[in-house]
Amino acid sequence: MTSTEATLLSDLHSIVGDRGLLTGTDVTLRSCDPFRAVPPEGPAIVRPASTGELSQIMALCHARGQRVVVHGGRTGVAGGAYAGPAEIVISLERMARIVEIDPVGLTATVEAGATVEAVQNAAMEQGLLYPIDLGAKGSATIGGTIATNAGGNRVIRWGMTRQNVLGLEAVLSDGTIVSAMNRYLKNNTGYDVKQLFIGSEGTLGVVSRAVLKLVAQPRTQLVAFLSLSSFQAVLDLLVRARRLQQLSAFEVMWQDYYAMVAGHDATRRPVDPSQPFYVLLELMGFDEAADQAAFNSLLEEAFDAGLIVDAVAATSLKQVGELWRVREGSEILVREMAPFISFDISVDIRRADAFAQAVRQALTTTFGEVKIVTFGHLGDSNLHIGAHIGSDTLARAHEIEATVYAVVRQFDGALTAEHGIGQMKRDFLPDHVDAGALTLMRRVRDALDGTRIINHDVLF
Amino acid sequence: MTSTEATLLSDLHSIVGDRGLLTGTDVTLRSCDPFRAVPPEGPAIVRPASTGELSQIMALCHARGQRVVVHGGRTGVAGGAYAGPAEIVISLERMARIVEIDPVGLTATVEAGATVEAVQNAAMEQGLLYPIDLGAKGSATIGGTIATNAGGNRVIRWGMTRQNVLGLEAVLSDGTIVSAMNRYLKNNTGYDVKQLFIGSEGTLGVVSRAVLKLVAQPRTQLVAFLSLSSFQAVLDLLVRARRLQQLSAFEVMWQDYYAMVAGHDATRRPVDPSQPFYVLLELMGFDEAADQAAFNSLLEEAFDAGLIVDAVAATSLKQVGELWRVREGSEILVREMAPFISFDISVDIRRADAFAQAVRQALTTTFGEVKIVTFGHLGDSNLHIGAHIGSDTLARAHEIEATVYAVVRQFDGALTAEHGIGQMKRDFLPDHVDAGALTLMRRVRDALDGTRIINHDVLF
Repeated sequence: MTSTEATLLSDLHSIVGDRGLLTGTDVTLRSCDPFRAVPPEGPAIVRPASTGELSQIMALCHARGQRVVVHGGRTGVAGGAYAGPAEIVISLERMARIVEIDPVGLTATVEAGATVEAVQNAAMEQGLLYPIDLGAKGSATIGGTIATNAGGNRVIRWGMTRQNVLGLEAVLSDGTIVSAMNRYLKNNTGYDVKQLFIGSEGTLGVVSRAVLKLVAQPRTQLVAFLSLSSFQAVLDLLVRARRLQQLSAFEVMWQDYYAMVAGHDATRRPVDPSQPFYVLLELMGFDEAADQAAFNSLLEEAFDAGLIVDAVAATSLKQVGELWRVREGSEILVREMAPFISFDISVDIRRADAFAQAVRQALTTTFGEVKIVTFGHLGDSNLHIGAHIGSDTLARAHEIEATVYAVVRQFDGALTAEHGIGQMKRDFLPDHVDAGALTLMRRVRDALDGTRIINHDVLF
Repeated sequence: MTSTEATLLSDLHSIVGDRGLLTGTDVTLRSCDPFRAVPPEGPAIVRPASTGELSQIMALCHARGQRVVVHGGRTGVAGGAYAGPAEIVISLERMARIVEIDPVGLTATVEAGATVEAVQNAAMEQGLLYPIDLGAKGSATIGGTIATNAGGNRVIRWGMTRQNVLGLEAVLSDGTIVSAMNRYLKNNTGYDVKQLFIGSEGTLGVVSRAVLKLVAQPRTQLVAFLSLSSFQAVLDLLVRARRLQQLSAFEVMWQDYYAMVAGHDATRRPVDPSQPFYVLLELMGFDEAADQAAFNSLLEEAFDAGLIVDAVAATSLKQVGELWRVREGSEILVREMAPFISFDISVDIRRADAFAQAVRQALTTTFGEVKIVTFGHLGDSNLHIGAHIGSDTLARAHEIEATVYAVVRQFDGALTAEHGIGQMKRDFLPDHVDAGALTLMRRVRDALDGTRIINHDVLF
């Protein structure tokens, strides 16, 4: 340890105390990546217990030119939490209180380190729902999901994290505390400064608290798993399903995905794997009779119109869980496909299958035989693709990515729909945003963190 | 005309041509205010026909240090369009094309000068709805409503303008074109730069084009006008109504408002004006039988619970219009109350009546006998208040405002819910936002328009 480093740790210790400062194996045994061991490479994890402590930490780091990387639940898949040897980690894990649930104003006031699941549980006790729903919700924190504008399974109904945040508090790189803890649906009092921090992947400041928007907890959940014989049938079904206000998920799986999951786990094979497309359709509502009637009509009309080949509807909460497990087969992908590169694209819904075919074509042309799985939140334009070209998949990651992202550009798609840029996609960012927009992003970052001490290697 | 001014006009003319440059009475006969004649005081209105022309205009003005004020439909009520003698006006009126309606992606691509109504009409031809609904929609433009993050009557269902914009293009003060014409519900490719321009009242750049989010056009519209005997009954009704996904408006009128409107127009008196509170409740949906059943149950259960004193339900589209006209009685206010100062507050829904009483108390204490009307989008926390203290109301506007805004601060309310700050509320802004947030706003504005040539006197 250098003497500069020793001084830094000592000064940080004087702000946060023993419990607030982790060093040694407390650092090296942590991972910055949800799938494998990628420890922070720097000397310390500092854990403020309050916004005041966080502000002091940032002011200190700013004065010293000390780079920091901010950690929430470390469930992000774009490398946004990776920390190099010259960076210390700031973790919000000790700021995890649920401060208030307001059942009339429909708000939750929380500290940034609270997990999404903890907020959901607190809301549920009041008959309310915080609708951001991710596989990682048990670990993912409110701060992390705000910083990355997390999406998930029910964006089609309730939007991304951005649409579910009313207010927040953040600490800028120089320690300035920005309080914008708005509780109202409507507030045009100056710039809506919270928007700067949502989805900026921590680069503009550290989110410390938030006011979240809650909705009434639906009382019904109706799920069907369907097979379809053409992509046009998928589109026609989506158009019909979107007419129902109860629609809460419209997840599509291409055969490559479904065959793999259903082929390796007999409990995840609700329908015969002989068709090119599979849809998990979910309605959530408040009136059992009306919702069931709407669900049945939709399915009957879709059958009558020849859109559906086969269908299974859940008749119990247990079956609801089983059908969702088909869609959430990532551990099978990891087992059967690893190593693979994953993609998180938005693309014109009408052209999603043409896009998937073009990706397969491009990868095959470049790499020969490849394994690909395609699935995603098609109702939101969002596809996930996993690609494996052989044992050299990781070594050739950049080539694989360049190949796929060239197709994304041809289709005018988005480089990342919900996972974000992190450190992993930053090389590709300039080719996927307008030059004027990139100039603007740089100007804003320069204005708020001119020396780039926060998440230095993230985004651009 | 000075020679500098003549040179400027000549240079502007060379960019936009004859049709693009208005001077003389074409300028002085226009108003920057929807309620009275407030002509621009500068020498010219320049009207670009394309983003390219707009960019050239901004680059020219930036090079000369020439201030500009941006005009949409000039329906804003906060003075954001007022232009002083040293300012030229840029109007987007010649950029009003509806470029595309995409019925599968559910998007409208439009130029900023298109009116809200023109977009709604184009969407309706495809069975779709652009849900921002304002009294001024025939004049208000997409650019203006984006710049001000306009709200209106159906925010409770579909959100503010911010929630209905997917992408936009804007021109910065130096002429840089920023294209962020995203068409996807999910796109985390770098900062969401469009958010900077939404609700920033034109101060960070000129919105030139936009991609708007459309929704399916509801097929049913059910409206009831109700009287209630207590504010608690209003709250209880709101909690019940919010359980219905069809809820599209929950407008509350205090007796002071309703008595004035119903007292001066017998066609706007659906129920007896003897109760302290009146609610206009609206459902919109897609299933006539189910929606009517939900509407009837809500009203029956509310009657049974003693929440409603009297109720009238519309049985025709004509009656729907008549009931909405009670809520939209602003021309009666202008006739009966003028001159008056209007307020646009967000406040904790639970405390809205206490707030209204405190405002009345404060104004009476300071000014003696006053006329006040209170109404608004209570389901969104948003109250509108009109206050008249006598013939010296306008002369004492600042005192009246200071009195009301002191109460707003006591109640931790928002200075403006939807109308914005403009030039009229800028003196009050610093007292109603956190110091750190204001610092941040200044840093962002300095980064994008350091010499403040756009909308110089707006916001701060």
